Amino acid sequence: MYLQNFLSIQPPYSSTQEQCFRWLSEAHEIAQQGRNNTQEEYLKLFHRVGCSEQQINQRFFFTPDLKEGDWEHKAIYPVRISARGVSMQERHEFYHKTVRKLFEQIYSERKFPDDIIHVSCTGYISPSAAQMEALKAPQNVTVTHSYHMGCYGAFPALRMASGFLANKEVLGNKKAVDLVHTELCSLHLNPQDPSLEQLVIQSLFADGCIAYSMSEDQPTQGFKLHSLYEELIPGTSDAMEWMVSDWGMKMTLSKDVPNMVGNKVVDFTLRWLHKRGFDIRAIRDKALFAVHPGGPKIIDQVKEKMELREDQVSASRELLRERGNMSSATLPHLWQKILNDDKIPSGTPIISYAFGPGLTICASYMEKI
Amino acid sequence: MYLQNFLSIQPPYSSTQEQCFRWLSEAHEIAQQGRNNTQEEYLKLFHRVGCSEQQINQRFFFTPDLKEGDWEHKAIYPVRISARGVSMQERHEFYHKTVRKLFEQIYSERKFPDDIIHVSCTGYISPSAAQMEALKAPQNVTVTHSYHMGCYGAFPALRMASGFLANKEVLGNKKAVDLVHTELCSLHLNPQDPSLEQLVIQSLFADGCIAYSMSEDQPTQGFKLHSLYEELIPGTSDAMEWMVSDWGMKMTLSKDVPNMVGNKVVDFTLRWLHKRGFDIRAIRDKALFAVHPGGPKIIDQVKEKMELREDQVSASRELLRERGNMSSATLPHLWQKILNDDKIPSGTPIISYAFGPGLTICASYMEKI
Repeated sequence: MYLQNFLSIQPPYSSTQEQCFRWLSEAHEIAQQGRNNTQEEYLKLFHRVGCSEQQINQRFFFTPDLKEGDWEHKAIYPVRISARGVSMQERHEFYHKTVRKLFEQIYSERKFPDDIIHVSCTGYISPSAAQMEALKAPQNVTVTHSYHMGCYGAFPALRMASGFLANKEVLGNKKAVDLVHTELCSLHLNPQDPSLEQLVIQSLFADGCIAYSMSEDQPTQGFKLHSLYEELIPGTSDAMEWMVSDWGMKMTLSKDVPNMVGNKVVDFTLRWLHKRGFDIRAIRDKALFAVHPGGPKIIDQVKEKMELREDQVSASRELLRERGNMSSATLPHLWQKILNDDKIPSGTPIISYAFGPGLTICASYMEKI
Repeated sequence: MYLQNFLSIQPPYSSTQEQCFRWLSEAHEIAQQGRNNTQEEYLKLFHRVGCSEQQINQRFFFTPDLKEGDWEHKAIYPVRISARGVSMQERHEFYHKTVRKLFEQIYSERKFPDDIIHVSCTGYISPSAAQMEALKAPQNVTVTHSYHMGCYGAFPALRMASGFLANKEVLGNKKAVDLVHTELCSLHLNPQDPSLEQLVIQSLFADGCIAYSMSEDQPTQGFKLHSLYEELIPGTSDAMEWMVSDWGMKMTLSKDVPNMVGNKVVDFTLRWLHKRGFDIRAIRDKALFAVHPGGPKIIDQVKEKMELREDQVSASRELLRERGNMSSATLPHLWQKILNDDKIPSGTPIISYAFGPGLTICASYMEKI
């Protein structure tokens, strides 16, 4: 199985981390009617606990709201009128309208495949934008929703795609499966919640949209997919949560997540590669490690525990700096970056990791072509 | 690929259709503070537009609410205190608590597989009850969420399972995949909405929980899975919708859905079986048709357009009568019923259909063993 034909769509709005902090701080002060902290105090808190601007330089968003002022007229966060922002249904209507346009743009620029797997944890509407777009195809396109798995969402979707192509007897002969990630994390902030945990979360997440294809034909430029693997870490189910709540999707995130992952990543990797018959020593030193940049500390942990060189994880750090954490859309952006980097030669092994609620650790072993 | 080892869990509360109508009518009157109709008037409307008690005899529920009276203290629908019922987050907390117990019960009665696919369109929490249960397994169990696809949800999950078993190169050697459906449709009623469309919906849906396994080893009792297929029907995206809303999941349902499906089902079936090289004439007369009993009219439509005998669709009608529409859990209950019916001989072809937002039509061709 091969991955190829990456197409990302840049969201129309961008903010530096400092602009984000200012906007978020003002939203918090107004939404909480000054009960907790002023904008300036929130700004200090964001600088203290949030991801720094050295680590996240800018973030891109599909929501136009993310500027200071005009708190009566924002699309999602008119916090002077509604302290939590607009309702869950209105957030979903915004999501659907935006994602329909994204699918239109994507399939004006590429051919329809046999299957589309729509990956998201930030908006659930059926029929989905993927289904509505699939109807425009000249051939029959099967649409599968791969929803609500969080930052590691690319892996279950890759698992599905690789299976859809493999089982010709039951599913028919399919040539290509597209995976399309549409993550509008910016829809699910809660300006009413003053907890430090929420400030950390709000300092990390951004929006992202990316499509790519899996097929059995070797492309001129792409990845060969050798192996996929996934495990749950015992005793960590409280460490991260993502659930449908009243005003939007609600996230919880323990600050111990990087350590919890760091403590397991070596055993996990050895177990995986041993089970599948790959030689970790042969791969490790020449591989590039595409670590889902959930935050800077998780990259540090994987680098330290796996005893990697900085250049083996530098693409992850760069992507975090350039775009922040786009949930499931992040790793595919990283793969696109690796593909477009001519300094990374064909044949380079790529070990990817992502992490999410469970805690779940997912990994893939691919090879750049 | 084979299906086997069906285990359904009967929800603890049941109501006759007449009891449901009385409860729903009282909930509507109180939630709307008598602005629209009295309980007696709603009861007449339910009898006029709702699915009759000849067609749905009883329904089972995990929510304890579904009795008249005591409207201050209901778990989900305390409509004297909150006209729409409890909040989205509280509904999800109820879902999670209930579904965790269901998974505990399921895996106290069966062995853990290599993979669990959790199928639902009625509750999204991560880590899911499936993930929390998988952690108790002696071996590594990979969990996949197959969420938000509605009544046809068994088909994408079967597609995933058959692929996970087929792609040994990328996914490793897996022996069995469990599919576990947990549908708590009763969490997502809106007693504030007086529209006839909502009364129809509220007359149809029930709760259901069922688990079954897919593997490559032929079982002594089960189904051989020959083929899966799915299409979207052009021009029908407005006919049915399922989206995350403010108080719960919101459904819309046009009364034209049975006709829309009926008008396409013959072409759909011919196209599918022709593409995959099966002879429809050889299969049609001896097959049993497991039609997702979304409502009585869709069974009528499929029977009429496919020119079937009543005995070929009678299992679908019986299941509707015995349990109502349990969304994605319905077809697996029907398969279980067919498996347990000694009058249906081994070798009988089983053609299954399900329908959902898109509109999507899904089908499978299996053979009873």
